[in-house]
Amino acid sequence: MAAEQQNRQQTYVVRKAEPQDSNQIYSCVEALASFHMSELDPGRSPESFLKEVFGEDTICQVLVATTKTDRSTIVGYGLFYRAYSTWTGPALYLEDLYVTPAHRGKGVGKLIWQNIVQIGFETGCKGVRMTVHMWNKQAKNMWEGLGCVDLSEKRHEHFLFYTIQGKRSIIETAFQTEFEG
Amino acid sequence: MAAEQQNRQQTYVVRKAEPQDSNQIYSCVEALASFHMSELDPGRSPESFLKEVFGEDTICQVLVATTKTDRSTIVGYGLFYRAYSTWTGPALYLEDLYVTPAHRGKGVGKLIWQNIVQIGFETGCKGVRMTVHMWNKQAKNMWEGLGCVDLSEKRHEHFLFYTIQGKRSIIETAFQTEFEG
Repeated sequence: MAAEQQNRQQTYVVRKAEPQDSNQIYSCVEALASFHMSELDPGRSPESFLKEVFGEDTICQVLVATTKTDRSTIVGYGLFYRAYSTWTGPALYLEDLYVTPAHRGKGVGKLIWQNIVQIGFETGCKGVRMTVHMWNKQAKNMWEGLGCVDLSEKRHEHFLFYTIQGKRSIIETAFQTEFEG
Repeated sequence: MAAEQQNRQQTYVVRKAEPQDSNQIYSCVEALASFHMSELDPGRSPESFLKEVFGEDTICQVLVATTKTDRSTIVGYGLFYRAYSTWTGPALYLEDLYVTPAHRGKGVGKLIWQNIVQIGFETGCKGVRMTVHMWNKQAKNMWEGLGCVDLSEKRHEHFLFYTIQGKRSIIETAFQTEFEG
């Protein structure tokens, strides 16, 4: 009972992620993939993640949440990058928002989200883009409750993906076109 | 008849966009918005476009198509930026692909697309993300014909947008959280 009460009183802080947080965040990424009943692509590793997300050439920005009393244990993260629309201007693209199971339902996700919106506001962004799986009703309700508009419903906008890897023949076709770089 | 034949024999080239192409590309952006029965956001202008797309802090990459004989008149453009997925790795996000009416049906869009894929391949990207409107059957058929997968259909992934501008009260709430930047 005392532990539960203490848990309820726990307060959280959000800060920018540092390279030393990388392994913990990667564990969260694996848990998020598992939650989506999916697996990370072959070849993904803590090493590739560290390099891509915290390397010099990165486009990623990451915020992490911890408790106020233990600021080295990550209990949630948000990963996003800059996006752009010719119609509306600069935006952010929220790729992942994740909270560890033990800390859910306490506003941690919302706290991370608010800080991402704050960064967007300060950098002149018009809005935040993201995708959500329809089966994840909890996530969809949360986003719509926060004021997000489902463009797939409203404007029948579908989200597509073209896989480059393993399509070398198409690439070779492109090579043959007259391209002046 | 002679003019038509000449038109058919026209070949196209694709190159990286330069700042001096900006006004012509912006006209294409306006035409694209009009094709979508939409308008650009208030405050959008050739000046803001030039600054956002060709400024020092830009995230945008733009390829333009011209005819081989008139390399200063833009007949199509593709605008994209770097994206990232924790599950699959680096990617590109194709924001716009547009060809002027007089040059449609001649493979110009495909030529621009192939060169974007080529850039993605050379920079280690796993794939290209984009959205397409369901009413634009021609575009959807083209993308699926090129091998794109509709994740909205396959994985029921919906595309959301959160508008930051005009929601100052939410931002002020975020200010009150304990955030360590």
